[in-house]
Amino acid sequence: MKANIGLIGLAVMGQNLVLNMNDHGFKVAVYNRTTSKVDEFLEGPAKDTLVVGTHSLQELVDSLEAPRKVMLMVKAGAVVDQYIEHLLPLLSPGDIIIDGGNSLFTDTDRRTAYLTEKGLLYIGTGVSGGEEGARHGPSIMPGGNKAAWPAVKPIFQAISAHVDGDPCCEWVGDNGAGHYVKMVHNGIEYGDMQLICEAYQLLSAGLGLSTDEMQAIFAEWNQGELSSYLIEITANILAYKDENGDALLDKILDTAGQKGTGKWTGINALDLGIPLTLIGESVFARCLSAQKDERVRAAKVLPKPTGSFSGDKQAMIAAIRQALYASKIISYAQGFRLMREAAKEYKLSLNYGDIALMWRGGCIIRSQFLNDIKQAYTKNPDLENLLLADFFIEAMQQAEAGWRQAVILGIQLGIPTPAFSSALAYFDGYRSERLPANLLQAQRDYFGAHTYERIDKPRGEYFHTDWTGHGGKTASTTYTV
Amino acid sequence: MKANIGLIGLAVMGQNLVLNMNDHGFKVAVYNRTTSKVDEFLEGPAKDTLVVGTHSLQELVDSLEAPRKVMLMVKAGAVVDQYIEHLLPLLSPGDIIIDGGNSLFTDTDRRTAYLTEKGLLYIGTGVSGGEEGARHGPSIMPGGNKAAWPAVKPIFQAISAHVDGDPCCEWVGDNGAGHYVKMVHNGIEYGDMQLICEAYQLLSAGLGLSTDEMQAIFAEWNQGELSSYLIEITANILAYKDENGDALLDKILDTAGQKGTGKWTGINALDLGIPLTLIGESVFARCLSAQKDERVRAAKVLPKPTGSFSGDKQAMIAAIRQALYASKIISYAQGFRLMREAAKEYKLSLNYGDIALMWRGGCIIRSQFLNDIKQAYTKNPDLENLLLADFFIEAMQQAEAGWRQAVILGIQLGIPTPAFSSALAYFDGYRSERLPANLLQAQRDYFGAHTYERIDKPRGEYFHTDWTGHGGKTASTTYTV
Repeated sequence: MKANIGLIGLAVMGQNLVLNMNDHGFKVAVYNRTTSKVDEFLEGPAKDTLVVGTHSLQELVDSLEAPRKVMLMVKAGAVVDQYIEHLLPLLSPGDIIIDGGNSLFTDTDRRTAYLTEKGLLYIGTGVSGGEEGARHGPSIMPGGNKAAWPAVKPIFQAISAHVDGDPCCEWVGDNGAGHYVKMVHNGIEYGDMQLICEAYQLLSAGLGLSTDEMQAIFAEWNQGELSSYLIEITANILAYKDENGDALLDKILDTAGQKGTGKWTGINALDLGIPLTLIGESVFARCLSAQKDERVRAAKVLPKPTGSFSGDKQAMIAAIRQALYASKIISYAQGFRLMREAAKEYKLSLNYGDIALMWRGGCIIRSQFLNDIKQAYTKNPDLENLLLADFFIEAMQQAEAGWRQAVILGIQLGIPTPAFSSALAYFDGYRSERLPANLLQAQRDYFGAHTYERIDKPRGEYFHTDWTGHGGKTASTTYTV
Repeated sequence: MKANIGLIGLAVMGQNLVLNMNDHGFKVAVYNRTTSKVDEFLEGPAKDTLVVGTHSLQELVDSLEAPRKVMLMVKAGAVVDQYIEHLLPLLSPGDIIIDGGNSLFTDTDRRTAYLTEKGLLYIGTGVSGGEEGARHGPSIMPGGNKAAWPAVKPIFQAISAHVDGDPCCEWVGDNGAGHYVKMVHNGIEYGDMQLICEAYQLLSAGLGLSTDEMQAIFAEWNQGELSSYLIEITANILAYKDENGDALLDKILDTAGQKGTGKWTGINALDLGIPLTLIGESVFARCLSAQKDERVRAAKVLPKPTGSFSGDKQAMIAAIRQALYASKIISYAQGFRLMREAAKEYKLSLNYGDIALMWRGGCIIRSQFLNDIKQAYTKNPDLENLLLADFFIEAMQQAEAGWRQAVILGIQLGIPTPAFSSALAYFDGYRSERLPANLLQAQRDYFGAHTYERIDKPRGEYFHTDWTGHGGKTASTTYTV
């Protein structure tokens, strides 16, 4: 009996996806460039399963039923292209290559077109859920050539997480749509993690709480509107003691690594001209954390404010919770707003409710909260911005006062809350009918003859003023000659 | 007598550069795609000058002395490549093409290499100063093929701004170095403008000051450490009355446009992993201002805080000034830190003191302040970060308390100050020996087996914990197979 699917790349995500597929009755053939890993896997985690080990790509391909489905779980970038080139001569028309790594969506656009040309079908899919998710049910976000979907759907929907019986896996759209949505998911994940870190630092450095006290707080928060995987594991992390009975967390170095996807989300937002300030700050916060040695030197010469908190601790804990919740709403509002622009720009037909459903289970950002987002889009599929949905208007009103208090606490004590405060500035800007950009436009017209519009004239009519009395009459709109 | 230099593109910057060159005794031949503009220019602003009008590229090239120098002042992007292709067959080995537009530095890298291959010399140069600067002395930042520099230097240094007798024009470096530095300059310009807008909004919406009162404040600020072109023109803009005697500023629409360079600076910072939060927020603030219709709708359903300011106005005006100054220091510290990383990454030998000198006159961000930066780099050319220079350590200490008060005022009144608060969060983060990224690393290890370092172990040693007791032992560092 031939295998149902082949998988290349036996790192943690690859191994766990294989075991997950095996659990659901699929026969999986595996290959890894360092072939000793194949043997280790078969003698170890894959012992007593249907998994077939292969030691060459030819052997892998020969072991598969038609149409062949080969899934790559390798490092994003050139390695994916290399495997595609190696596989091309071995595959037949109608066979399917699936890339399950964190590829840049424009690479997936390119590869889908390239393989279509060659008579093969391509799927680029986001897979989220980390080690545990891959093993027991990830969120899967496939896009690419839709003709490949029927052959892959039974496997993907079987192994994905399920919430209320629905699989957290649906076809996202053409070409790079799956990887695009996965990219935004990862950006949001960067944001969620940064927000939790800021709450944690306000609680610890600001209110002086112990890891045990904070463990109880996060466990409690996980019961309410913040209920989510990341809050849950934060409580578990706070509870984890090392062999000496100390909190392991306190011994971990504070320098965060990053892969490409958070950064890409920020770059894409800049490219599309959509404010994605919270995720941008979150990516930069990781970069700053990585400058550890420089920070240590700076700490010696740039003294911190000396104050300490002396108010009502319980009230401030509640305010920090509200700051976390309100900022999280902003982050998702910004992320979904970005996808809305991307759908327009890249001509994707994204279904935002479906996306919220795909993320509500299996993946790292899974949460209660995504149900509320789903409901907002069910009520109004054309919703311009989550902040304009009744549910979130109400939620923001309730959280707003505490949010401001928590940000002010950080400012007074010199505790950085870049994501909390960036979110608040966005919120206050978003609901400002009038921003000070009139001055900015005046400046641009003053020094660069860039022209401006007026509030008392129709949009699209441009004016230039000779502010100094000795400038020219030439507006720079003609600078496109 | 042949012309010394040719210029293509007679929009406002092009025209003014030509007149500036003419003033300094250089004979300039001009060409424009819409050739009627050539005639209009010669009959108008260039009447009674030595400027030669031409109506074809052949005619332009034939009118130039050897080595021919052809300067493009056209829209960045494909148009530059098109002109290069048109010029190639008309030019001879050793001739020079100069791009004075806002080109992406990687395009300039590519074009320099391409023209070297063809036996031609290429310069990509930043030109800043807007309409007025181009006419009377801009800041010029040339890079590219250094063999072209001696032929171009006399013209560029003659027409550039001068401060204390020194030209605001020096060779920046190979390939795209000139355009890279111009890009960062423009990013900083985005930041400076946003900071002034935030001060303006706190003064107007926060303290309820009139345009006349604010005019006096900015005029006064222009006498001290904030003394700069942008502060000066802000005072002038506030003073400008329309034909009805009203402040024109109040009638300008609050939707800011943008060209590519601010966005590119943000993208480059994300690519290099260097926090450039203030400029990032400034670019996004422009994007948000552009969502005018959506903001108007949001303003209707998302009510603002109702408080108003009731404290000491003069003290708060002083605090806002400190916020502007401190934030500006952060912005330049971030920008120079980015250039330091770029020099490493792209192997540029940037001279930061020279760059500060180039910017101190002629360009949009020209200021007193750039002298202080120049001095800091003179004192220590290897300065890691401007924030670690004695002068700025002292400056931050003096400005810090007011800065915090101004940001808190914005938060209390619901006035967005994304750049002020982002700068403050960066400052508080930069001088934090310990950031909460330990929690972030724990989370990444928990869900993705990404490993972490420890504070009690040497750097470079990575640990993975099986946090749940049922995860695998496979760290995801092996996910590069």
